[in-house]
This record gives sequence, C-alpha cells and structure tokens, in this order.
Amino acid sequence: MKASCRAGSNIAFIKYWGVADAALLIPLNNSISMTLADAHTTTTVAWDSSGILPTDTIVIDGTQLQGAPAQRIVAHLDRLRALAGVSHKARVLSKSNFPMASGIASSASGFAALTVAACAALGCPWDASQLSAIARQASGSASRSLFGGFVEWERGSSHTSSVAHQMRAENHWALRDVIAIVSARAKRVSSSSGHRLAATSPFTTARTLCVADWLATVRHAIAERNLSLLGPILELDALAMHGVMMTSAPSLLYWQPGTVAVLHAARAWREQDGLPVFFTIDAGPNVHLICEAETAPTIEKRLRALPAVRQVITSRPGPGPQLLDEHLF
Amino acid sequence: MKASCRAGSNIAFIKYWGVADAALLIPLNNSISMTLADAHTTTTVAWDSSGILPTDTIVIDGTQLQGAPAQRIVAHLDRLRALAGVSHKARVLSKSNFPMASGIASSASGFAALTVAACAALGCPWDASQLSAIARQASGSASRSLFGGFVEWERGSSHTSSVAHQMRAENHWALRDVIAIVSARAKRVSSSSGHRLAATSPFTTARTLCVADWLATVRHAIAERNLSLLGPILELDALAMHGVMMTSAPSLLYWQPGTVAVLHAARAWREQDGLPVFFTIDAGPNVHLICEAETAPTIEKRLRALPAVRQVITSRPGPGPQLLDEHLF
Repeated sequence: MKASCRAGSNIAFIKYWGVADAALLIPLNNSISMTLADAHTTTTVAWDSSGILPTDTIVIDGTQLQGAPAQRIVAHLDRLRALAGVSHKARVLSKSNFPMASGIASSASGFAALTVAACAALGCPWDASQLSAIARQASGSASRSLFGGFVEWERGSSHTSSVAHQMRAENHWALRDVIAIVSARAKRVSSSSGHRLAATSPFTTARTLCVADWLATVRHAIAERNLSLLGPILELDALAMHGVMMTSAPSLLYWQPGTVAVLHAARAWREQDGLPVFFTIDAGPNVHLICEAETAPTIEKRLRALPAVRQVITSRPGPGPQLLDEHLF
Repeated sequence: MKASCRAGSNIAFIKYWGVADAALLIPLNNSISMTLADAHTTTTVAWDSSGILPTDTIVIDGTQLQGAPAQRIVAHLDRLRALAGVSHKARVLSKSNFPMASGIASSASGFAALTVAACAALGCPWDASQLSAIARQASGSASRSLFGGFVEWERGSSHTSSVAHQMRAENHWALRDVIAIVSARAKRVSSSSGHRLAATSPFTTARTLCVADWLATVRHAIAERNLSLLGPILELDALAMHGVMMTSAPSLLYWQPGTVAVLHAARAWREQDGLPVFFTIDAGPNVHLICEAETAPTIEKRLRALPAVRQVITSRPGPGPQLLDEHLF
C-alpha cells in the first residue's frame, strides 16, 4: 500500500495553452515536450487501508498543504480512489529539486509522480497511456511527463484519446535545457487558471491554427536532430503563447525584467556570436535556453554572468517515471 | 522661401502597425491618438530659389544627416517639390525636445513640422487634411500630428482618403501622458521597416479584426472623458501590437527589462493602490502612462523612484502644428 516514484518535469517545444474541454482538460492543440532528467519530483504515497487516517495528508517540500492547494491533490486522489474502487485516505510526501511555481512545470512532474506512485501502491495494472490520461485530468502537462525523452500529447477528443506518447527516447538527441531562473517567486495566476482565460484572447484561434504547421516542423526537427529547424519554431511558439496570455482578459504578464534581459542576451549570443541557442518560456518568468550538449557549458557560464539570473539549472533529456525502492517516509 | 513650424508628437491609443499599401502608407486599420503639447519638434525649412545649393542639407538635433536617414527626408522634399512644381534644394534644421528613435514618435512630429514648414515656405495653399495625406507618405503617424487634441486617422482606400481628422480639441479632456524613458538608445529596427513585417505575424489578421470594436470603444471613451473605459483598451491594443511584433519574422522585441518593470509597477499602482493609470507602448522600450491631470504628479514621483526609469516627461494634450515667427537659422 506504499510506493515511491520519481518523475521528471518537461519543457514544451510546442506549448499547451488553453482548453477545449475544461472539465476533462482536453487541450486546444497537441503539444510536444522533452522530459527533463535533472528537474524532477519524488513522491511517496501510502494508502491507509486501516481506516484510521481521517483525511488525506499532503506534505510538499516540507509544507503540509491546506485549502485550495491541498484540494487539487485531494481531487486527484479522489479520481484514483474512484477508478480503483477504494476509499482509503492517503499520506503523500513529495519534494522537487527545483523551485516550485516559477515556470518550471512542478505540476507536470508532481502529478506524474503522484499518479504513478499512487497507482503502484494500489497495485493497479494500468499502462503508461492510461496513466497519462489520468494524470492529464490533474495537470495537462503531467500527461507528457508519463514518458521519457521526446513526447507528444495528442489533443484527442475524449478522456481516453487525449494522451501522450513517446516520439523518441531520451538518448535520441543530446539536447540540453539550460534554465535561467530570474525569479523564484510563486506566480500570481496559476497555469490552471490561465488555461481557462486563453479563450478570451483575440489571438488564441490564430495560434491554434498555426500550431498544426509548427508541430509538423518540430516532429521533423526532432527526428533529424536539427536544432536550426527546431529553434525558430521554439521561440515563435513561446512568444505566441505569451502574446495570447498578455491579451487575455484579465491580461497575464508572466515576464519579469530579467526575462527580457535573458531573451535579448540569448539572441545576441546567437546572432552576434554564432552560438546555436534558442529560448522558450513556460507560464512563468524563467527562460529555458535550448542547445546541444557541447554548447551548454558556454551558455551556463554566460547566464551566470548576467546580473538578472539568480540560478542556472541544466537538464538532459530524461527517462519516464521511475518507481523507487526507497521511500520518503 | 523660409518658414518654421513646431509640431507635437502624438501617443496612439489605438495603434498603427502594418500597411495595406506599402507605397502609399495606407494602414491596415484606423488609429486614434492624442497630440502632445510637451514633446515636440521644431523645424525651419529654407528653399534655395537661387539654385546655388547643390543638394538638400539636413541637420537634425545638431547632426548633419547622410545616407539613408537623409534619403528619407530628401524623398519627402522630392514629394513636396513635385506637388509644388519647383526644383529648389532646401536647407532643413530641426530639433526635438525629447530623445529620438526610442518610442516617442519623433518621425510623427518631425515629418508634420517639416511638411507644414516646407509648404508654408513655398506658399502652398493646402489645408490640414491635404497636408495630413502628404505627411502620411513620409511617416504614417505624422498624418495624425497635423491636428491637435484627439485625432483619428481614417485608413481610407486611396492617397486622398487616408487622412486624419480632429475628433476633439486639446482642451476637451485634461489627460496626461507621463512617459517613462527606460532607454534612449536608438531602435535596432525602425518602425518603418517593422510595418512591412506585420504581415508575417500570425496575429495581424486577428488584431485588425478586433481593432474595429476597440476603435468604437475609444471614440466613446474620449467623447465621455471616461478613463476607465479607455484604459483597458489602451493596454490591450498595445499588448496586441507587441504580440504582433514579437511573432513577426524576424521577431521584433522592442521591450527592455525596464519596460516590464514599469508595466508591473503601473498595474500594481492601479490594482493595489487604486490609482487610475493605464499604460501604452509604442514601437520602442519606453512606457507611456495615461492618467488624468490630477493623478500625474503622483505617477511622476513614483516613476522617478523606479531604478529602471532614466527620465520622466509629462505631456498635456497639445495643439496642431504652429507656424513660428522665429527661425532656427
């Protein structure tokens, strides 16, 4: 009745932003991501079959959750209880090795690890695709963290068809995500609230129409390991998503001054110094610089020299969720 | 054969970005602006009827122009020569009381002042609407600086129909444009180049379609002097224009870190402190905070306290171009 799992966060090359079905979390468009080896969440779940535990208890990064943040996790445990036909309460302990709620997808790695650990502890026989659909209901991007390497989440049209699959394994392409943390403060508007606002932007339809072409290019670029094909689409889709966010009602401006400093720096390094590096930005202020392994040390060094950058985390492509023999409690 | 004119820059509430006809500078959409009393350009033009002057000589803010910057002004003098049926060369001396090429529309005030001074020196009888059409061919936003107060530039469908007109005089509404200068560096991509790139953005069509509604709201807000109606559209259209710019090919990122610092500050002052202030941003890094006269001193003081802000310029609504009795040479 107890299991532990480590799951990587992921960085989307084509973003998920906006929902076609807010209840099921069916997205407006397919998305493509790289699962991260070095930005991960470890979660232990213990189901209480004795019936002594009166409520779920959830501790994340040392803090016992109360109220709305706890409720989102309890709602996911409720889903799992309903699927497994049990009523046990659970003890959940989780920790990430990166700052939460600041543009690195802690909900992706967190809900992937929770889903896998909770199901393993219940002895459920579900495969990765089924687990991807279950995780999606808690956090859309978590559906992608159910797989390692390079992953596409098919929009689909129903609960069971809106799932991710692996395009290529993590050893296919030695890309690096060099993450410039410019602010570790929690976001004022969570991604899950923001998704519902996408429909209010005048740009959502245009972005959704373009994404079909961009997806085809990104699939091709990944297959061919072609960064100069991938990179411009990476930047364009990130800017398009932030254009949607800024023009939604209310307007979401996730960028901070340091965000813009890193964007200009990255473009200058590429255009003036010839370094093959491209940026993307999730729903937060931090900037992810995507480059090949050989370029990463130079990018890290240059980022650390920027006053706006507080921390640099570099990640390789990582595996899918791993069950662990050691538990957090 | 010599005349001098002072013309105000203007700040657009609904922006001009993108051209339907690049040769005539017929825009994709109508735009609405406030002419500025306190950010202006003064220009003296002297036509050389003696035929001694071999070429046009143009001095702007103390620098004699050569090459492409001179060519843009010579091309405008050529237009005026063709219209007036003369071949005189001209001496042009011009100075602005604000930094050039950094998001305050120096081309608007500059080409408005040049057009009016040059035509007056030739004794041409053209009215403000005709001068607006002529100025438009040099710089779209200059068409609006031919009028004082609150001005709409009709897109039109031909050279003579794509002109501005005054909606309300400058004393209609005591608005203030409090300009936060975060960078006075010249832009890497000029507005006139950027306009041609608008067509490459996936968002241009969506923005153009929305602008019809936004224009109606802004006309109504100006008529009623209703800042809480004007303000949200002001911010939305500015963000929409920058969304178009960022997603054009090549991508134009006019913002600097200080831009984002001022955007967040302005929103915090409004949402947390109840100050009625809204932002807009032209094709540059500086932020224009629009508020009523009574709020302006507080905004100025707060802006000056921000480390990212180098200079603050406040402007009232201003008159149309004024012919001057005193010349610059």
